[in-house]
Amino acid sequence: MLESAEIGHRVTKEVYAREERKLRAALLNAQYDLSQSGRGPVLLIISGVEAGGRGETANKLTEWMDPRHIRVVAFAESTPEESAHPEAWRYWHALPPRGKLGVFLNAWYHEPVDPLNGRTQPSDDEPLHARLEGIRDHEQMLTDEGVVLLKFWIHLSKSAQKERLQELDRNPRTSWRVTRTDWDAYRLYSKRHDLWEHLLRETSTGYAPWYVVEGADERYRYLTIGKILLGMLQATLAKKPAALTHAITPTTPSVVDNVKLIRDLDLSQRLTSKEYERALEKQQSRLARLTRHKRFARHSLVLVFEGVDAGGKGGAVRRVTGALDARQYVTIPIAAPTDEELAHPYLWRFWKNIPRLGGITIFDRSWYGRVLVERVEGYCSVSDWMRAYSEINQFEEQLTEGGAVVVKFWLQISLAEQLRRFKAREHTPFKRFKITSEDWRNRKRWDAYERAVCDMVDRTSTEIAPWTLVEAEHKTFARIKVLKTIADRLKRALNR
Amino acid sequence: MLESAEIGHRVTKEVYAREERKLRAALLNAQYDLSQSGRGPVLLIISGVEAGGRGETANKLTEWMDPRHIRVVAFAESTPEESAHPEAWRYWHALPPRGKLGVFLNAWYHEPVDPLNGRTQPSDDEPLHARLEGIRDHEQMLTDEGVVLLKFWIHLSKSAQKERLQELDRNPRTSWRVTRTDWDAYRLYSKRHDLWEHLLRETSTGYAPWYVVEGADERYRYLTIGKILLGMLQATLAKKPAALTHAITPTTPSVVDNVKLIRDLDLSQRLTSKEYERALEKQQSRLARLTRHKRFARHSLVLVFEGVDAGGKGGAVRRVTGALDARQYVTIPIAAPTDEELAHPYLWRFWKNIPRLGGITIFDRSWYGRVLVERVEGYCSVSDWMRAYSEINQFEEQLTEGGAVVVKFWLQISLAEQLRRFKAREHTPFKRFKITSEDWRNRKRWDAYERAVCDMVDRTSTEIAPWTLVEAEHKTFARIKVLKTIADRLKRALNR
Repeated sequence: MLESAEIGHRVTKEVYAREERKLRAALLNAQYDLSQSGRGPVLLIISGVEAGGRGETANKLTEWMDPRHIRVVAFAESTPEESAHPEAWRYWHALPPRGKLGVFLNAWYHEPVDPLNGRTQPSDDEPLHARLEGIRDHEQMLTDEGVVLLKFWIHLSKSAQKERLQELDRNPRTSWRVTRTDWDAYRLYSKRHDLWEHLLRETSTGYAPWYVVEGADERYRYLTIGKILLGMLQATLAKKPAALTHAITPTTPSVVDNVKLIRDLDLSQRLTSKEYERALEKQQSRLARLTRHKRFARHSLVLVFEGVDAGGKGGAVRRVTGALDARQYVTIPIAAPTDEELAHPYLWRFWKNIPRLGGITIFDRSWYGRVLVERVEGYCSVSDWMRAYSEINQFEEQLTEGGAVVVKFWLQISLAEQLRRFKAREHTPFKRFKITSEDWRNRKRWDAYERAVCDMVDRTSTEIAPWTLVEAEHKTFARIKVLKTIADRLKRALNR
Repeated sequence: MLESAEIGHRVTKEVYAREERKLRAALLNAQYDLSQSGRGPVLLIISGVEAGGRGETANKLTEWMDPRHIRVVAFAESTPEESAHPEAWRYWHALPPRGKLGVFLNAWYHEPVDPLNGRTQPSDDEPLHARLEGIRDHEQMLTDEGVVLLKFWIHLSKSAQKERLQELDRNPRTSWRVTRTDWDAYRLYSKRHDLWEHLLRETSTGYAPWYVVEGADERYRYLTIGKILLGMLQATLAKKPAALTHAITPTTPSVVDNVKLIRDLDLSQRLTSKEYERALEKQQSRLARLTRHKRFARHSLVLVFEGVDAGGKGGAVRRVTGALDARQYVTIPIAAPTDEELAHPYLWRFWKNIPRLGGITIFDRSWYGRVLVERVEGYCSVSDWMRAYSEINQFEEQLTEGGAVVVKFWLQISLAEQLRRFKAREHTPFKRFKITSEDWRNRKRWDAYERAVCDMVDRTSTEIAPWTLVEAEHKTFARIKVLKTIADRLKRALNR
C-alpha cells in the first residue's frame, strides 16, 4: 500500500495558491453546514511515519477552518491520570460531539507503531494481532454510532524521511521537534516497513479505510488531505439520516423459549431475620476488608444493578455502600440522557464515570438500557440494539483489561409482588417519590421485558463479566446474594 | 470556640435509636424535595482533628440518605493532574450541581491545618493570613451563587483523641486507618490548638459559619450533624428564590464619563500591507518560540477575546493560533450556557476549560459576559453583575497564582465600520454564518455596551491581568497589536 506514496508527488506554488483558495472557502462552508446538521462528528486520525508532517497538517486544517469547532488532540505516552483508567478512556474523553471535527494525532495507532516498543515484525505477534482486532471493533462501533472516521497515513520514503529530519534539524525554529527517538526510528525504517504494511492492511476496513498520503511535499500533502476531507464532509451532509425502525417486530431474533431463565428462578428463597443479620454482618465485613486491601489499588470495581421496577435495587445498593468508604465510591443513577450525552455515542456517558484504579462506581441502571427499555419501547432501531450486545461485550472487556472487576445483577420479583410493593410505596411518605406513572405503564410490558432480559443474559453473560440473576422476592435473600457475589468476585480477582 | 466540644457530650443507645429513625425519614424527604426544587447545591464541609470521625460521618450520611444524590470527595495531597492546574480547579471539578448534596472532607481547609506543613502558630504567619482571606472570598462567591455551605469542625479533646486512636489501632478492621502522621499530629495537639481556634475564628462568617461538634461519642456526633443538616435543608427549601431585578437602572453605579476610555481610542491607526507582512512574521515567530520554550512548561496561557460584534475577534484569534501548535491549545467559543452549566455557579464552565501547565486556552468571549451582555440585556440582577467584578478579579488571581499568564483583549471599531462589515458579511458566501439578527439588535444598544465596557475595564484591569484595548478599525493594526501584546507578556513571565 505504501509504494505509491514513495514516488515524489509535488504540487507547484501556482497550482497550490489557486486551489487552496477554493478549497478553503469550501471547507469552511462544509464545516458550518456540518455544525448545523447535527451529523457526525467527523474524526480525522492522522498517523504515519516520523517527520511526515502530522502536526503541521493539523495546524493547517485549523488555520483553514474555524478552530472553535475543531478539537486537536495528540496521543502519546499516557499521563498518570490516563494510566489509572482503562486504555480507551482517554479516547472517549477526547471524542467531540456531533457537528464538530476532531483531529486525533496517532490516536489508538500510537502504541502499535511506536518505535520505542521495539516491535518491527508483524509475524507471530499475538499481542499485535489482538490489538488490531480491538481497533477494528472500536472503529466499527464508532461508525455505527454515527462517527465519520477518516484515517490518514502520512508516508515518506526512507530518503525523504532523512531529508525532512535534516531539514527540520537545521532550522533553529523547528530543531526542537527532532528528537533522538526520531533518528532511532529512522534507522529502523526498513525493518518497520513490513509492520506498517501489515497494520494498514489489517485496519483498512469498509467503514474506516486508510488514505495513504505522501508527506514529502507539504503543498501536495495539504491539498490531498484537504480535498479528501472536503469530499467526506460533503458526502456526510448528503446522506439521509437512518430512519428509526420500531422494535417488537417478528424479525426480532429472540430465542423463543429462553424465558425459562427467568421463569425458573426459585423466588421462594428467603432468610430468617436472624440468619439475615448474621450474614449481613459477615458479608459486609468481607467486602469492607477486600475494598480496603492493598492489592485493590491495582483494580477497580464496576457494579451494575438492573432489575424489575420495585425489585429492590436501591435497598441492595445501600447494603453494599454501607460496607464501603464514601470517599471511595460514587453512585451513578442512569436516567434519560442529557443533550450533551445524546450528541455522543451511547457508551460515552458511561465511560465518563468509569472509576480509576482503587475506585468503585455503582451504576443504578446502566448501558443495558439500550437492550432493555430502549428495545422494548422502540426508542432505538432493531439494528441499534442488536449490535449493542457485541459493543457491550467489547466495552466490558476493555474495562476488565484495565483492571476493573465488573459485577452485574438482575433483580427479579413476581408480578404479584411488584403490585404489592407499588401499593405500599404509595402509602409510605418517604417512599412516595419512588413510584411514577411510568412504573405502572411498564407493568403492561412485562412479557416483552422478560424476553429482553433473557436475550440480554444470553448474549452478554461472559466469562469475564457474568450476570448474576437475583431472586429478589424476599429482600433479605437478595441483599445477601448481592453482597456475597461481589465479595467472592473481588476475592478471586485479588488472589489472581 | 473549642471548649464546649471537649466536655464529653453523650447520647444513650435508646435515645439514639428513637431519634435516628425520625431523623432519617425527615432527611430522606428533605433530600428529595431539594432535588425537585433546583435549589442549592448544599455543600457540607467536614473538617477537624485527626481521628474525629470525619469519614465515618460521611458514610453515615450516605447510609441515611439516597447515595445517588450525594457526592463525597476527600481532599488530601494533590494528584499529578491536580498539581498541573490552579489549586481551586479540583474544588470546582468536584462541585455538585443544583439539587444535590456534596460532602467535601477537609476541602480547602486541608492545607492550613495539615500537620505535615509544620505550621503550629497563627501569629505573624503571612501566607496563612492571605490563605484565609482567599477562603473567605471563595466561600462568599459560592454562597452568592446559591451554594448552601455547611461547615462542620469535628473536635476531640486531647485525651479523647488519644483514646480514639488507640481504639482504632486495636481493632483489626480499622487499624489500617491509623497512620504515623496521626500520631505525629497527636503529639502536636497542644501546639496546634491555637491554630485551630484562629482558623475557626477567621473563617466563621455570616454566610458560612462553622459548627463545632464534639466527635468522641459517635451517636452524639451523628445526631448533631444530622439535625443541623436537616434544619439547613428545610431553611433552604423555605427560602424564596431571589427575584431578578432588571438592569439599566439609575442605581447602576457607573462612572458617567469614563466612556472616554473607549471614545478616545485612535481608530485611524493602520499598517501598510508590507509593514503588516513583516510584523506578522516577526510576532508570530516570537510567539511560536516562546510557547515552545522549556520554561513555558511551568506556565500556561489564558487568552480572552472580547469586543464589539464584527470587531475582528475571529481573524485575530486565527493569527494567534497560526503561531501555535494545534496540540497545545484549545479554542473555547462561549455561547448560551447548557443546562448542566446553568446548574452550577457561573464561573464553573470556565474552570472546566482552564489549561494545565504547558497548555493554552483561547476564550472567544468569556466570563466577562456577565458584566457585558448579561448586564446590558438584563439577564442577571444588578447585584449579580456588580459582585461579578470582584469574583472575576479573584478568579484571575487564582489562575495567575497557578502559573497562568492571563491576557485580555477588547477589540473596538466604530459604529460606521461595524455597519460596513455587517453588510459585507451578508454578501460573502463563506462568511454568511457570521451574521445573525441578534447582531443587528445589539447595534441599538451601542451606548449601553460602551458604558459596560468602560466599567469593566475600570474594575477588572489589574496589575496581574490588565486589559488591552485594541484599535481594531484596521484589521492589520489590531492583529499585530494582539500578537505583540501576547508575546511581550509571555516573555516577561518566562524571564521572571
